[in-house]
Amino acid sequence: MSPSPSLLPMILSGGAGTRLWPLSREAAPKPFMPLPDGETLLAKTAARAFALRDVDAVITITNRDYYFHTKDTYAAMTGATSAQAIYVLEPFGRNTAPAVAVGALCAIARGFGEHVLLVMPADHLIRDQRAFAAAVDRAAALAATGALVTFGITPTHPETGFGYIECGELLVSDEGHAPPAYRARRFVEKPQLAVAREYLTQGHYAWNSGMFAFTPNAIIAAFARHAPGVLAAARPIAQALGSAASIQMLEIDAASFAAVPDISIDYAIMERAAEAGEVAVVRGAFDWSDVGSWQAVAALTIADDDGNHGQGERVAIATRGTYVHAADRVVATVGVENLVIVDTPDAVLIAHRDHLQRVKDVVGELKARGHDAYKLHRTVSRPWGAYTVLEEAPGFKIKRIEVRPGASLSLQLHHRRSEHWVIVRGVARVTNGDREFDVHPNESTYIPVETRHRLENRASEPLVIIEVQCGDYLGEDDIVRFEDKYGRTPA
Amino acid sequence: MSPSPSLLPMILSGGAGTRLWPLSREAAPKPFMPLPDGETLLAKTAARAFALRDVDAVITITNRDYYFHTKDTYAAMTGATSAQAIYVLEPFGRNTAPAVAVGALCAIARGFGEHVLLVMPADHLIRDQRAFAAAVDRAAALAATGALVTFGITPTHPETGFGYIECGELLVSDEGHAPPAYRARRFVEKPQLAVAREYLTQGHYAWNSGMFAFTPNAIIAAFARHAPGVLAAARPIAQALGSAASIQMLEIDAASFAAVPDISIDYAIMERAAEAGEVAVVRGAFDWSDVGSWQAVAALTIADDDGNHGQGERVAIATRGTYVHAADRVVATVGVENLVIVDTPDAVLIAHRDHLQRVKDVVGELKARGHDAYKLHRTVSRPWGAYTVLEEAPGFKIKRIEVRPGASLSLQLHHRRSEHWVIVRGVARVTNGDREFDVHPNESTYIPVETRHRLENRASEPLVIIEVQCGDYLGEDDIVRFEDKYGRTPA
Repeated sequence: MSPSPSLLPMILSGGAGTRLWPLSREAAPKPFMPLPDGETLLAKTAARAFALRDVDAVITITNRDYYFHTKDTYAAMTGATSAQAIYVLEPFGRNTAPAVAVGALCAIARGFGEHVLLVMPADHLIRDQRAFAAAVDRAAALAATGALVTFGITPTHPETGFGYIECGELLVSDEGHAPPAYRARRFVEKPQLAVAREYLTQGHYAWNSGMFAFTPNAIIAAFARHAPGVLAAARPIAQALGSAASIQMLEIDAASFAAVPDISIDYAIMERAAEAGEVAVVRGAFDWSDVGSWQAVAALTIADDDGNHGQGERVAIATRGTYVHAADRVVATVGVENLVIVDTPDAVLIAHRDHLQRVKDVVGELKARGHDAYKLHRTVSRPWGAYTVLEEAPGFKIKRIEVRPGASLSLQLHHRRSEHWVIVRGVARVTNGDREFDVHPNESTYIPVETRHRLENRASEPLVIIEVQCGDYLGEDDIVRFEDKYGRTPA
Repeated sequence: MSPSPSLLPMILSGGAGTRLWPLSREAAPKPFMPLPDGETLLAKTAARAFALRDVDAVITITNRDYYFHTKDTYAAMTGATSAQAIYVLEPFGRNTAPAVAVGALCAIARGFGEHVLLVMPADHLIRDQRAFAAAVDRAAALAATGALVTFGITPTHPETGFGYIECGELLVSDEGHAPPAYRARRFVEKPQLAVAREYLTQGHYAWNSGMFAFTPNAIIAAFARHAPGVLAAARPIAQALGSAASIQMLEIDAASFAAVPDISIDYAIMERAAEAGEVAVVRGAFDWSDVGSWQAVAALTIADDDGNHGQGERVAIATRGTYVHAADRVVATVGVENLVIVDTPDAVLIAHRDHLQRVKDVVGELKARGHDAYKLHRTVSRPWGAYTVLEEAPGFKIKRIEVRPGASLSLQLHHRRSEHWVIVRGVARVTNGDREFDVHPNESTYIPVETRHRLENRASEPLVIIEVQCGDYLGEDDIVRFEDKYGRTPA
């Protein structure tokens, strides 16, 4: 085998994950959802990417609203890496083909045209890093020859929720940990159960994992052949990103992005390329899950003798086969079976295991009602930390505000509310009108209406304050920002 | 018929109501639990008692911990009454016979020996006041002749959760709204289903409602005949209460009360008296429920076409026959049926309708674990109002405190915590060290450790403050009380 080519992982991080409500929300979707072990899928995916050999840079394509959250996730990862993180930020979701086209063009512009681009969705779970790395090595070697490579997973059951790839002639045999590779004959969409059963019996069908490997040059050539419209719309975007001020944070312009067809890489390229015999399948021998429903999350915890599992303070009386995610409250079950119960500070889900696909209908219903619980958690992430609304009532609102070391809220004022700040942990540097001073735990300060103010944490410990807002209008939009470290001041 | 005797309703308010967890808690049991219409069973029972004709006084026998809450409930009742409320406070629960004996002796001591004592458990629901009043009239007339009268309810289904009374010879026929009365032949305990079905078919069995009518003189004579031990132990208690300082609030001494046998009025008196032919049954024609389980609560709301009912923010997808009590969070159900779901700020119950009797096992389990959720709600009632813990973490605790007009917390100090008070509604009269001053909405004050302080509401509107406590120890027991309107200062 030829020396291994360098890898350029490209993490695609998006997707609402509405079937994982209420832990997954529009503003904190599936990649950011903590799994039962406390780690998010994004952190796991990034760890997988950075741990591969010969990785100089990792490109992450995500929504611009998730930029700070994503950067924080990477910063919190254990095991430092020298690889560079590059962010391509989308103004809105536009499916996978535009993301891959823009990402590949940017890679070429940076001189990575013959690296192997490894496309990794951010919401997949793979636990066997060694088998994964072996499959990536196999795929990279094939991709270096110009092939478009997909990762197929050997089915363990007749799953109707995934697409399949029919494997044709053997290209490379398996060898030690290295899995075999085949020519992909065709891609097939999610099958009916009878068909899925047949695929499982026949043995030469694999689940389409949604992961790919190819050189930027090869995939751009494939776009030129099979989806020239996507490529034509992607080129000016990549060109604009090439001349952006930052080389690490590339923000796609909304108007240009809207001009790119909304289409998946499977439809735009892979299906047609497979017909043309251009696609190889590496048949991975690793466990793989797209964590597509609560069933998949529940499977990550070990059940007791009654088939009950979960986390948090649970009381189970005459209960069987039930998964309970309890956060800070007691969840008691009596005489029930085969339920999934997910408790969060502002919403609780009770679903039967056989109907977990319909959890997304709850999100649709909440959206239709204009209820925030489809979108926001009670704790809201901000570039500088997070806030949690503890109580809201006519005339007042109470928040717990946490500010990270070195972080700072914008210099701002409010027209219609005053704020009482009580510092309960850390040291606050406060700007209050013309004065600037430190406030320590068990001290407080008062910010009148129409007064410029700023909250900063210049210490090395987290800062926690309790804010009591008083006023006749307490909406988040009553804010005038004067200076902001995170570019949130009006132009 | 002879002129109607005067009535002396005696409300027995106790009982944990563990089958109604998590809305019913040890510190806020079933009589205090709001029903779907927002009113409590205690309020409904008191309204029923005060609305009867010829009522000069109402005796309430309850635990001393519920005294202020009970008094507040009566004070909040619509429709003023001139009847006097007398409270007999138990140090702990001791079943119904001791309560009735002590209550009857007190009534005799007050000169009510020939009034008709109407024993009413505080956790029953009766919606037809007119039919109830007619039955009470019938019972009072019989009681005035010296009979011990029970209220039997005509069964509507073969209930196995109630005791039954077998009716013998007809004593008085029904007449207009007035129901018939029979001699009680015997009391039978909760039957098996087959037996309950037979009772329903035979037609001369009635549910034992737990309500009674008799003169104090008659029931004390019956105690002397059938339960002299109870009477002997009750006499010194009644004597002590007769010489108490207050004539409205009579607190039973714990040591004396422990000497009274723990036995129900049914076992101690009624069963034996029925054998002796001394008991009459008024067969009430009113609807009656002891609201003994979530099934009974659910039955109070109207179901939609899918059999779903409840209150609060609910999303029901592919859901049938399910009752949801949602408080301040969204409760979403997917693909479930025949569940009862009760959501509270610190606990959520998911139970199958066929297993609602086992909800009490959850309480047992929580108690065994030492978890507070069996006992306390997140909002705790106090003589002066209520407080709610919004958040608690090492070093700080946040409470919303509501003080009723005219009420006042004790003059107190804390050794280990400081308090920041932000007034968000009403006007606070604050004592802070040597100073006394008013604090208005959007103003704050700071109470250092070891500083005497007091919070009062001298206005006519409710006062709401947000209290942020800071300190290394934040237990409720770090309090030194100097003056207290509610007798909570150490002797």
